[in-house]
Amino acid sequence: MRERRLDTAPETRLDTARIRAARRVIDPVFLDTPLYRCEALEPDLGCAVSIKLETANPVRSFKARGTEVVTSRLAGSGSPAVVCASAGNLGQALAWSGRGRGLDVAVVASRFAPAAKLDRIRALDARLELVDGDFDLARERAAAIARHDGIRLVEDSLDIETCEGAATIGLELAESAPSFDAVLIALGGGALATGVGHVVKSLAPGVEVICVQPLGAPAMTRSWRRRRVVTTDSTDTIADGVAGRRPIPAVLDDLLLVADDAVLVQEASIMAGMRMLLHHAGLVAEPSAALGIAAILEDRDRFAGRHVATIVCGGNVDMDAYHRWVGAAPPLR
Amino acid sequence: MRERRLDTAPETRLDTARIRAARRVIDPVFLDTPLYRCEALEPDLGCAVSIKLETANPVRSFKARGTEVVTSRLAGSGSPAVVCASAGNLGQALAWSGRGRGLDVAVVASRFAPAAKLDRIRALDARLELVDGDFDLARERAAAIARHDGIRLVEDSLDIETCEGAATIGLELAESAPSFDAVLIALGGGALATGVGHVVKSLAPGVEVICVQPLGAPAMTRSWRRRRVVTTDSTDTIADGVAGRRPIPAVLDDLLLVADDAVLVQEASIMAGMRMLLHHAGLVAEPSAALGIAAILEDRDRFAGRHVATIVCGGNVDMDAYHRWVGAAPPLR
Repeated sequence: MRERRLDTAPETRLDTARIRAARRVIDPVFLDTPLYRCEALEPDLGCAVSIKLETANPVRSFKARGTEVVTSRLAGSGSPAVVCASAGNLGQALAWSGRGRGLDVAVVASRFAPAAKLDRIRALDARLELVDGDFDLARERAAAIARHDGIRLVEDSLDIETCEGAATIGLELAESAPSFDAVLIALGGGALATGVGHVVKSLAPGVEVICVQPLGAPAMTRSWRRRRVVTTDSTDTIADGVAGRRPIPAVLDDLLLVADDAVLVQEASIMAGMRMLLHHAGLVAEPSAALGIAAILEDRDRFAGRHVATIVCGGNVDMDAYHRWVGAAPPLR
Repeated sequence: MRERRLDTAPETRLDTARIRAARRVIDPVFLDTPLYRCEALEPDLGCAVSIKLETANPVRSFKARGTEVVTSRLAGSGSPAVVCASAGNLGQALAWSGRGRGLDVAVVASRFAPAAKLDRIRALDARLELVDGDFDLARERAAAIARHDGIRLVEDSLDIETCEGAATIGLELAESAPSFDAVLIALGGGALATGVGHVVKSLAPGVEVICVQPLGAPAMTRSWRRRRVVTTDSTDTIADGVAGRRPIPAVLDDLLLVADDAVLVQEASIMAGMRMLLHHAGLVAEPSAALGIAAILEDRDRFAGRHVATIVCGGNVDMDAYHRWVGAAPPLR
């Protein structure tokens, strides 16, 4: 297919033709995920809501779109091993993708990551190393392993494959002849937001790209607002998938080109979002995947009468914690 | 596409060419649903398991595949109104499909049907009439309305559109180059089982077609075993979606041609199946949608080492009841 170049295509590190090509190396089980109006959510939200569901696949998150691209290139180059730091979902996806291509996969994660995510990484035959700290400490350790072993380090959001893999979601959104006029995207390291944002701004520039991050992990949002990297000393959120402290400069540069807004939401809103997705949509969302609904809940006026798409980007939760989060409201008692 | 006729094509009322044609009138939001290995389920089940997920769409069940076919033909014929009896999912699907085509939709349901299903039928602008009895009483009442008003009665499983719509799931299974060697299908009125069974037996005849029904609503399974219609006086199961007492002779005839087996499972196994789907797959399944997992749980030896596909056919539950069902096991406490 010939690439359709619009004047509005943002000059990020991403390339829409490469993103189209990425679809050909990603296992189809991760592509063309459900996208549908969820009217049962709408009375409480005051706007039309479409769900882009990234949880109904072998790793229950969107991350394999990126790791499929990474590992297909690695396997083609004959490189036998790869390491990444992960909050849990990237590691699971890299383990899945690497296993299928005969790669040795090592994952470094925080020992505070959800046990469900760590268990799945191990079950997928990856070597899992836990650090006594957060995701950003795991990043340092993964980099050290890569240097020591001389193997490929996968850096989520920095490595273009992770962004362009995630960006295939943007293709599916933009090519659905979108009737929605805003897309809400969980913001962590930025792969999902810059990936989807790049494609949406290229192919459907009228759609507003809104990134959503927890108030308890606001580094990238603050950086976006100040147009320079702002780090934080700690994070305090249940949304483990997006809890970073140190934004990557190149990713921020891209985000500045594609995001129309970045908003911060409270923990109570994230829990309310998970609860609504469960009760009204029958969907198990991890906290990061409920950020979009949380953003609507916190600013109903902004979205009133509009049609909003939100990416339910992962569903890996520890069930005990999940039931505490969603069980806090009357409907469950 | 030319129809590929195999000698094994069973001589049911269904036609594979018509089933392929049905795909063209069904809204794509209901087609090409996720189909994926769910390894996290496998240690407890002792076999490879693939999920065919029919819950991530606007009505949270497979039923719209059939109602899309029904209503597209009705709209083409200029007929303005339609009525059906429903356990809840068909009515919701008919309401959705009819609304989009400008039809007046009436649904008759039991007042004991899940409130979540009844609420959605109303929300989709259908006229809902409740009967003080079960699904089979609702069938009688719907037929009376159709006669009185002179409008189309949609009879689930009897009307070929409902079977051939459901059968499009079979196309997606058979054309996925299936590595699975058995498919587990919820058995109620028989539309899903005869539809999927017809296509699987036509296009992938080596795949075992196993129907699963609750012990508390065994009429169709008993009928299949005795090769003649057997009715029951009552039903006693949480699997409201498959709780019929009076099998339809023509549907039984088809089922006899396509089912390799029909098994009955206990309520505790259905609940365990729902719990496993929630905890290990992150999926909210209604009881009928957990019948396949229940069948594996009750006969692990039969499936040991094999690859089984199961259709998670609906996810409409009353949350209070659902939490009671899935909360009965240690992992939640």
